[in-house]
Amino acid sequence: MNALFSDRINDVPRSFIREILKDALAPGTISFAGGLPNRDLFPADEIQAATEKVFRLRGKDIFQYSQSEGLPELREYIAARYRQRGLDVPVSNILITSGSQQGLDLLGKTLVNEGDLLGIEEPGYLGAIQAFALYRPTFVPIPVSEQGMDTDALANVLSGPPVKLIYGVPNFQNPSGVTYPEANRHAVAAQVRATRTLFIEDDPYGDLRFEGKHLTSFYQLMPENTVMLGSFSKVVVPGFRLGWIVAPDALMQKLIIAKQASDLHSSSFLQEVMLQYLRDNDLDVHIQKITSAYGQQKQVMMAAIQQHFPEDVSMTHPEGGMFLWATLPESMTAMALFNEAVKDRVVFVPGDPFYVTPGVIRTLRLNYSCVTPELIRSGIERLGTAIRTLETRG
Amino acid sequence: MNALFSDRINDVPRSFIREILKDALAPGTISFAGGLPNRDLFPADEIQAATEKVFRLRGKDIFQYSQSEGLPELREYIAARYRQRGLDVPVSNILITSGSQQGLDLLGKTLVNEGDLLGIEEPGYLGAIQAFALYRPTFVPIPVSEQGMDTDALANVLSGPPVKLIYGVPNFQNPSGVTYPEANRHAVAAQVRATRTLFIEDDPYGDLRFEGKHLTSFYQLMPENTVMLGSFSKVVVPGFRLGWIVAPDALMQKLIIAKQASDLHSSSFLQEVMLQYLRDNDLDVHIQKITSAYGQQKQVMMAAIQQHFPEDVSMTHPEGGMFLWATLPESMTAMALFNEAVKDRVVFVPGDPFYVTPGVIRTLRLNYSCVTPELIRSGIERLGTAIRTLETRG
Repeated sequence: MNALFSDRINDVPRSFIREILKDALAPGTISFAGGLPNRDLFPADEIQAATEKVFRLRGKDIFQYSQSEGLPELREYIAARYRQRGLDVPVSNILITSGSQQGLDLLGKTLVNEGDLLGIEEPGYLGAIQAFALYRPTFVPIPVSEQGMDTDALANVLSGPPVKLIYGVPNFQNPSGVTYPEANRHAVAAQVRATRTLFIEDDPYGDLRFEGKHLTSFYQLMPENTVMLGSFSKVVVPGFRLGWIVAPDALMQKLIIAKQASDLHSSSFLQEVMLQYLRDNDLDVHIQKITSAYGQQKQVMMAAIQQHFPEDVSMTHPEGGMFLWATLPESMTAMALFNEAVKDRVVFVPGDPFYVTPGVIRTLRLNYSCVTPELIRSGIERLGTAIRTLETRG
Repeated sequence: MNALFSDRINDVPRSFIREILKDALAPGTISFAGGLPNRDLFPADEIQAATEKVFRLRGKDIFQYSQSEGLPELREYIAARYRQRGLDVPVSNILITSGSQQGLDLLGKTLVNEGDLLGIEEPGYLGAIQAFALYRPTFVPIPVSEQGMDTDALANVLSGPPVKLIYGVPNFQNPSGVTYPEANRHAVAAQVRATRTLFIEDDPYGDLRFEGKHLTSFYQLMPENTVMLGSFSKVVVPGFRLGWIVAPDALMQKLIIAKQASDLHSSSFLQEVMLQYLRDNDLDVHIQKITSAYGQQKQVMMAAIQQHFPEDVSMTHPEGGMFLWATLPESMTAMALFNEAVKDRVVFVPGDPFYVTPGVIRTLRLNYSCVTPELIRSGIERLGTAIRTLETRG
């Protein structure tokens, strides 16, 4: 059997998160390892009402095969929302996908030849590394931090052989929670615009800003060089698996072919229900509820960290999204801390899977969106104890 | 932009059907070009009831991210259904996919290296050609007819360099409507079993038998060499995009990685609704309604053909499914007939896109599942006239 597998599937990193967490955790374990939106905030009643309305008002065509591009009215809704933010996105340049994860797969399919250079944030989103790895690019890491994408490193990368794609999550990045500052965006765009490189601006968390102001998107700065990915997973529900790609005309034609070959189209029924939900509710009012909860959870986590972590642990300061990123003292690895912490019944994701460059990793991701303030406080306290235990042990 | 596209995406044939039918058809055009199940038979009320029950009985987790393998209870239902047919399929070997089209994509991802030999039925399913083409195999056509897969051609193919995969639709094939006879299945399995080739048994129509008896599946004849694809699209609704793959353990592990990289998982909500529908209704009773309608539609089409087509047009005799396949006299091409027929306001799919070998094609696909008996009669009459017009013109 093994001889039959494709080379590409052997290149894909296993889900590290799945691996490290596959053993049953002790009862009472507090998990900061999640990457899920908070289920308590799902608009279940509104979705139910929208579903009932769709059943009542629409014919049986909601169950039939439909267009690969997606429901026109849903694509119009997305275009209208972009317009509100000052982005002019023609409806014909929007393709509905089965979550933005599928957006990544379709971009890999249509753009990546084996060995193509693909710039990726370091640390970067594991799901993107997995999706692209199937198309066997050569990953080129570009560091990101609270200063945004490292422009020296970017200049260095762009001065070499042509880079086909750069993948980034400029808002409240997964895993680090960082946001590229406004000036950094302009600097990055100025560099990329001078090349034929496409920048993939993945923005699942952009709406989840609980502090500060919305910043300029790369699509605004360099529409010709930008492909945008969007998703309803973090602002409505992930279980509908609905996202989208915004792409230039020529690429759009190829993406439609790839979409057709991949799964024909995303569920017509779910697109109808999502559309009805969006028509009957003010999405921004709902988002307000989410950001108010996540903002509070983040503050509780930051305060607990200040109280319980040694001073030589540094943290990012996210203004939105679901994640905090910690950097441990030089002497400590994230995996060592994980092994200690799991004994104290608290878990997180060690930074290791988010790097394409192997190395000694002392960073880690902490999720706050799925944990109550009480549990955040006790979990961070336990984690602080684990860090001090390791420090003492030296 | 064009320079950025991957080589693979340029290999994928455009949807010929989409291309030839993209121009608006004259009002009153009768279409045998469809490939859709009949919407009038969708169990809309039952699905609505199931959906309401899911909202009532299940918590918000139906909207959350879920397992890449799919809902365990839905996989158990599928295993139980196989057991009824005498097939022993462990639940752990079933992966839920976003329609069986995604099953094809995942198999391409996990198994096909560029240049691998992939045996494909000729004529063969266009969706499979498109899905696999993205992984750049070398297609090796193996003729199929009402005698099943051509065993001489198969022996010839298997005697050459190793063939990694053979793709087939043994029941009521799309496009031809043919079913491999029992003896042919045993002969094909005996040949394949002696190799390391995997046979992909795609069976979206198997339940739609309106005449004759169910035949032995390749999975029964050679479980080690068979991967099965199944789908709810033709027996419940296509708009839910739910299908599945049955694969051996080692391949299953790779498929889960590929599924995760491709779209994380199929909609948790739709899987719950489908499961509830299946628990609250007897699927076989529903299938009975479909086969009774399709069986009648097929008979009406056959009778009209006998009345209106010249004798030198030969037809397949499907015992199930949604398609008939016609072979025109030597002097006529399917495209010429299409161009004549569209003027008479009747359309079908010329055989051309179903062949990986270029050539002069005089076969065509006629769909009867979506057309009423009255329209079938007038459409076939018009088509008969078009054939005679071309014959006279010589």
